[in-house]
Amino acid sequence: MNYSDFDKTEAYQKLAALTPDFNFAAALDASRVKNCAVPMAGGLCYNWAAKAAGDSVITALQALADEQDLTGKYRALLDGELMNTGEGRRVLHHLLRGRLGKAVIHQGRDLGEFYARELERFSDFAEAVRSGKMKGSSGKPFKNAVQIGIGGSDLGPRALYIALDNWAQKNGTKKINGFFISNVDPDDASAVLAPLDLAETLFVLVSKSGTTQETLANELFVKDKLKKAGLDPGGHLAAVTSETSPLAHNPAYLDSFYIDDFIGGRYSSSSAVGGVILSLAFGPAVFKAFLKGAHEADALSLEKDIRKNAALLDALLGVWERNFLKFPVTAVLPYSQALARFPAHLQQLDMESNGKRVNRAGREISYATGPVVFGEPGTNGQHSFYQLLHQGTDIIPLQFVGFAESQRDDDTELEGSVSQTKLKANLAAQIIAFARGKDDGNPNKRFPGGRPSSLICGKKLGPEALGSLLAHFENKVMFQGFVWNINSFDQEGVQLGKVLTRQVLSAMGGPSGDGALDEYGRLLGI
Amino acid sequence: MNYSDFDKTEAYQKLAALTPDFNFAAALDASRVKNCAVPMAGGLCYNWAAKAAGDSVITALQALADEQDLTGKYRALLDGELMNTGEGRRVLHHLLRGRLGKAVIHQGRDLGEFYARELERFSDFAEAVRSGKMKGSSGKPFKNAVQIGIGGSDLGPRALYIALDNWAQKNGTKKINGFFISNVDPDDASAVLAPLDLAETLFVLVSKSGTTQETLANELFVKDKLKKAGLDPGGHLAAVTSETSPLAHNPAYLDSFYIDDFIGGRYSSSSAVGGVILSLAFGPAVFKAFLKGAHEADALSLEKDIRKNAALLDALLGVWERNFLKFPVTAVLPYSQALARFPAHLQQLDMESNGKRVNRAGREISYATGPVVFGEPGTNGQHSFYQLLHQGTDIIPLQFVGFAESQRDDDTELEGSVSQTKLKANLAAQIIAFARGKDDGNPNKRFPGGRPSSLICGKKLGPEALGSLLAHFENKVMFQGFVWNINSFDQEGVQLGKVLTRQVLSAMGGPSGDGALDEYGRLLGI
Repeated sequence: MNYSDFDKTEAYQKLAALTPDFNFAAALDASRVKNCAVPMAGGLCYNWAAKAAGDSVITALQALADEQDLTGKYRALLDGELMNTGEGRRVLHHLLRGRLGKAVIHQGRDLGEFYARELERFSDFAEAVRSGKMKGSSGKPFKNAVQIGIGGSDLGPRALYIALDNWAQKNGTKKINGFFISNVDPDDASAVLAPLDLAETLFVLVSKSGTTQETLANELFVKDKLKKAGLDPGGHLAAVTSETSPLAHNPAYLDSFYIDDFIGGRYSSSSAVGGVILSLAFGPAVFKAFLKGAHEADALSLEKDIRKNAALLDALLGVWERNFLKFPVTAVLPYSQALARFPAHLQQLDMESNGKRVNRAGREISYATGPVVFGEPGTNGQHSFYQLLHQGTDIIPLQFVGFAESQRDDDTELEGSVSQTKLKANLAAQIIAFARGKDDGNPNKRFPGGRPSSLICGKKLGPEALGSLLAHFENKVMFQGFVWNINSFDQEGVQLGKVLTRQVLSAMGGPSGDGALDEYGRLLGI
Repeated sequence: MNYSDFDKTEAYQKLAALTPDFNFAAALDASRVKNCAVPMAGGLCYNWAAKAAGDSVITALQALADEQDLTGKYRALLDGELMNTGEGRRVLHHLLRGRLGKAVIHQGRDLGEFYARELERFSDFAEAVRSGKMKGSSGKPFKNAVQIGIGGSDLGPRALYIALDNWAQKNGTKKINGFFISNVDPDDASAVLAPLDLAETLFVLVSKSGTTQETLANELFVKDKLKKAGLDPGGHLAAVTSETSPLAHNPAYLDSFYIDDFIGGRYSSSSAVGGVILSLAFGPAVFKAFLKGAHEADALSLEKDIRKNAALLDALLGVWERNFLKFPVTAVLPYSQALARFPAHLQQLDMESNGKRVNRAGREISYATGPVVFGEPGTNGQHSFYQLLHQGTDIIPLQFVGFAESQRDDDTELEGSVSQTKLKANLAAQIIAFARGKDDGNPNKRFPGGRPSSLICGKKLGPEALGSLLAHFENKVMFQGFVWNINSFDQEGVQLGKVLTRQVLSAMGGPSGDGALDEYGRLLGI
């Protein structure tokens, strides 16, 4: 496999030589919208009609995909190569959803079988809790499940929980109420626990290493509360961790479910990290349908023709915008309240994966990598930051998501349309408004247009569609990492803060050896 | 008053001629942290030690403040000048918190007295509900209050509600549970209402114009549910609107509380828009304490010496970063779970106010205005997008917020420190890590540093501190608008989407006259 820095490729030179002169007003018509549709898994569709890319750009991006052998690298990753170069690890989150490459054998163990076995183990555990067979230490059945975790053990699972909650309520599969504690701020855990009957509450402690400071602090917080309520903590806690962590095979937990070093935190929603809480709340069948949608998306991502591979095309259009149109930010705008926290997950997925300044061999690179990602649900965003998106001095590319039907099927008609139709009308209108703009004699009412966007849409947001959506973005981020020749699977940028935090905590108000650090500590009352 | 485009000022030329060569490693020591502290209202303090600004930059920024007469323009605004130029309106949100300028008389009415009278009216209303004197239509006392509003009628009030909830619980003033419905997505309203006993629920309908599409759709949704539950909608609805709106003086509501055209949506949290729901939930005294903190911050913002005026200095440092260091994004990172949704409010406040491309006279300008704003609470962000902030290819300035004490005073000690101390240690450590970075033989473990930040800190987040915090950012955004010579108080950029939405809705699946728009509609199943 050939690994080249992006700016050393022929395709880079060709892209840099293109003139960005796409004319939305002329080009964006009904036939373009029809022609720019790429089917996705789970009944979704990716539409890039409103991206600033004509045939010459697409041809150059296809050449880039071919020259960098992006699908070949994906195949190598699926086959178990050590794609997390800095840490010398495989990258196997796709295998959690089903096998697409060779069997991956590690230290004599088939990891596909290992992941499948854990899936069955926690499915059985979830069924035992949901059926009431497994009860709390005082004999009450569990009604609540609280996940204790941070970063990838929180953002992805939380976003997915919120995305499926209404769907599961409507479909009658919801049995357990899910909650999340993540922040080391004690107000977080205290406020989440306050309204809950702990006798009916199961905690899911999630830390791959078993040493995450915030999570261990919150575990202790919860155990103290359980004890004060006269309950046995061991009867209310399950763990998700790696087999080598201090939490593994520990009789202090009801049960433990395992992942390994080849499942990165931000890619772990498809493992027990997301699977235990989602299976408890909505049932194992719902979680498996989610995995099915993701697996189908993974399979489609192997396609070499970028016009037929939504994740690959989305990745390449993002590179075009980032490196040649020089846009440093992307907004994610789901027209679905269920996806309220999905942008926060994408923020981690994208920014932690591709916010890098060295290539996969550890040498500094000289081109821009991952953009800033932010977003809020439409129509809320329309009444907030869209002003800047429409008329600000910078151009921000937009990623829209929308569905034909609501999840709860509970709606009201006003002035000839139901709210779901109003929601969709707003979405369609915004795409056109951003792309075309509008001239006006009054410059304050003039919309420059030329704001590119893409749209992912489907019939309804259910488990398979959600799996497809998650995998789409995971694979998009992966392909962009391949283009930029970086390692999208480590996160060395979080280490320095940890070291300095320990320095403050061991000094505890005394001199830490760093005057400025101590002064900040004094300001904060440490 | 003299209004000049920013790039036509002498100060602009001087700033452009400065060499940005601030050396964090050399300059950021204990004495700088001590010297760069600016007292704020409500017991808070603004510290800019970790900003990339030495004496030459500060001197040039002071000259800019003086040349553009930034505090003079603020004074004119306070005195009631038509600072919302495009719409020919005054800008009077400061007057909601107390008077600092001349009496503002409009059509024979003293507006300060008008705002004060409305404050007393909704305080009395809140007391009547809280005491149980005012009951629902079936005779049950109210336990819940649901705000129906979008944009400024949602984001600010919701952020403040979340910020004070734990504080009020701890202090025993919380009596009513608050909820919010904003999105036109029917899943939003349906899911919020599902667990509530409507007989115990009061709705607060908030729309200044009384014509906001999303809000009227949600009002109808709620009324249908009330009727289906056998309740009289009129006994469960109060309105916040302007006196000229269709919602005003309407016997269909229990009561109506008024604002006027001089209170912009994103600046309306200090009015009945935020005040009714906050007074219902936490008590009028808490809301008045919040106003007091904001009023004190407004008074401090009149100071001409930028080293003594936190909002003004913060604004100018932001201009330095935006226009001369060329940073297009700012991250807001509160180390306080209570401020979880405060960044979403700041997103609207900043991006809707200053995402502009024409000056206050309506002529196009040629320099960058408002940045993208995003953020999540620390320590959560540390386990997410901080990777890009530390080691990405772009520099993102950071706005930290932190407090000495938690709100709920419910904590656990692990390894010699309580969680609140760990939270603060992380915050102090991050400031240093971002500023100084760290060299390493392995480029993948190298931190370039030079990531500027500022810190707002205080003892505890209560109502006065929160008022101070809100006013700080409002005034910062206002001063930046004055520097850029734009109108920070209109939002023409939201109009085009509304027009196109109506076009889709009136066609309802038939031809709208725009082929691409119709095709997007078909994709979405309209």
